Amino acid sequence: MNNVNEWLKIPAATADNNIRQAAEARQGILTKPPGALGMLEQTAITLAALQGTEQPDVEQVHIAVFAADHGVASEGISAFPQAVTAEMVKNFAHGGAAISVLAKKLNAKLEVINLGTVYDPGPLDNVININIAAGTANFCHQAAMQDEQLGQAMDAGRQAAERAKLAGAQLFIGGEMGIGNTTAASALACALLDAQPEQLAGPGTGLDSKGVARKTEIIRQALDFHGPQSATPLQALRRLGGFEIAALAGSYIACAQKAQPVLIDGFISSVAALAATRICADAGNWFLYSHASAEPGHRRVLEALNATPLLNLGMRLGEGSGAAVTVPLLRMACTLHNDMATFEDAGVSGKEI
Amino acid sequence: MNNVNEWLKIPAATADNNIRQAAEARQGILTKPPGALGMLEQTAITLAALQGTEQPDVEQVHIAVFAADHGVASEGISAFPQAVTAEMVKNFAHGGAAISVLAKKLNAKLEVINLGTVYDPGPLDNVININIAAGTANFCHQAAMQDEQLGQAMDAGRQAAERAKLAGAQLFIGGEMGIGNTTAASALACALLDAQPEQLAGPGTGLDSKGVARKTEIIRQALDFHGPQSATPLQALRRLGGFEIAALAGSYIACAQKAQPVLIDGFISSVAALAATRICADAGNWFLYSHASAEPGHRRVLEALNATPLLNLGMRLGEGSGAAVTVPLLRMACTLHNDMATFEDAGVSGKEI
Repeated sequence: MNNVNEWLKIPAATADNNIRQAAEARQGILTKPPGALGMLEQTAITLAALQGTEQPDVEQVHIAVFAADHGVASEGISAFPQAVTAEMVKNFAHGGAAISVLAKKLNAKLEVINLGTVYDPGPLDNVININIAAGTANFCHQAAMQDEQLGQAMDAGRQAAERAKLAGAQLFIGGEMGIGNTTAASALACALLDAQPEQLAGPGTGLDSKGVARKTEIIRQALDFHGPQSATPLQALRRLGGFEIAALAGSYIACAQKAQPVLIDGFISSVAALAATRICADAGNWFLYSHASAEPGHRRVLEALNATPLLNLGMRLGEGSGAAVTVPLLRMACTLHNDMATFEDAGVSGKEI
Repeated sequence: MNNVNEWLKIPAATADNNIRQAAEARQGILTKPPGALGMLEQTAITLAALQGTEQPDVEQVHIAVFAADHGVASEGISAFPQAVTAEMVKNFAHGGAAISVLAKKLNAKLEVINLGTVYDPGPLDNVININIAAGTANFCHQAAMQDEQLGQAMDAGRQAAERAKLAGAQLFIGGEMGIGNTTAASALACALLDAQPEQLAGPGTGLDSKGVARKTEIIRQALDFHGPQSATPLQALRRLGGFEIAALAGSYIACAQKAQPVLIDGFISSVAALAATRICADAGNWFLYSHASAEPGHRRVLEALNATPLLNLGMRLGEGSGAAVTVPLLRMACTLHNDMATFEDAGVSGKEI
């Protein structure tokens, strides 16, 4: 893996434990029964520790959506045709996609990075083109990526994280678009977790049970083909992943190295997060989890990450949309933490029994 | 029940089924796999039907928090002293309580209605004083309210709903504050559901298991004392409820009559919603449910309401706080519904298998 950049070896940054303790103490003296704000309390405490401030804040959000095509799409494992990847890149750029609408509502920065689609979306403002290839190779018969391609994809993620940091983002969200990418993510998760395809394959954008059975079989073929060669996280990512999945993993690792909190989206993003934690040991300390997806394999991946997402709305869209929907909850958690009165300030009596 | 106002007999308004169908159809042609936005899709469809518009919107939110004391507090069933009710009224007015902070963040109208506290919070701007009595009577030994008091409390709720409607609110949230009010709500729920106290009593603001056992026993005593006299919903509300619970029920009924969508908060609000649906048959058509509370009895009440809340964050604060935290999700649901491109608009290919 000579071509994978050296930067992956940089360790994750360390959160501020003093501030974590101060934030925990503050939650105990705000005018509410201790614990009464539920998961919002821990969310504020975690953000305080990660941001290194007693006044956590996520008004500045940077969303990077990575798009790419997948060779395995030729196996007929998606409910939608491959043209949709490029068509959705256009839709992102024109503001009509879910993530475009959500980013606008959140007043968040949205950038779209096209890493390589089979069809040409044409010239588009607001899209960063990093044309690694016209999609990955079909991983049933060969590695999805060459070493150099994996390095390019992960580096595209690192660059997005750097742009976010430079722009003063308080929270990074990675999103993805790529017809076939639940198949790639499921195969990658199988390799990382040493799990069976049945445990990770699901309907994606809307396969019926026959379609899921076919997808499961394709993943099994791929796992058999690559065998122990996909045993290390980087080899699993290269052989079974996709450009956008590798870019997500790269962005998450770079965020962790740069002390940039990340809000993880759904199934595919969580598999990328899992890969990131296997490549960079403490990267996961910088991750918050937004939602439990309707994709059945997500539960298994979340368990492996020891993650408890805030939302469970049955969403399964990708694009970073589930994370975007969760941002207001983080903002509420911060506002409550920062602005509520303490028992002493407000002259409110404490617990007596 | 002569003193309970005649207005309770007005039927609930009817939602617009044509618009509901149009909204359902629109969700099917937006650029996403059908169903991929999970519960946000149904939320937008419901709001469209209730608001009678193809462009649902909840930017204008009216929050009414009702505060009152409870005679049953003298039985030692709360972790906090009774003085906290009045102290929290002050905290609401001064902007330091959770609901104050959330309302400000949401740019929502917040009104506080003091229906009767044992302690005097003193003169406060921004608090509507309707002094029914210095708290309810202890329902272990007599009815919590006289007929006239029940009428006054429910009418206070109706007036809040009318103020919301007049102000052009697109969503109504009712909140409550009253030391002892999970005990009253649990007792009321037992009467409405013909359930045992063990199924409805919980830790409230933070009782230990011994405290919960005592609370359960107090509720059992009250149910035994009132017996079949609390068999009708209005009698159950009068005998076992509280001023703020009756006001919530009144506000919910008035909202349903006036075609004003309501976002229900947690345990106590849900019990008030249950009472409202028993008093006014189709009132529940106007209710959306925000969150599943940590209070264990909430599940039973939600089941009776056939309700699936959007959030499950382990919150248990009351004040309308769980509903307020949920407002941004409703706003996201509306924005996605209104602003996403259709497959045709965006030139995106549809599902093929």
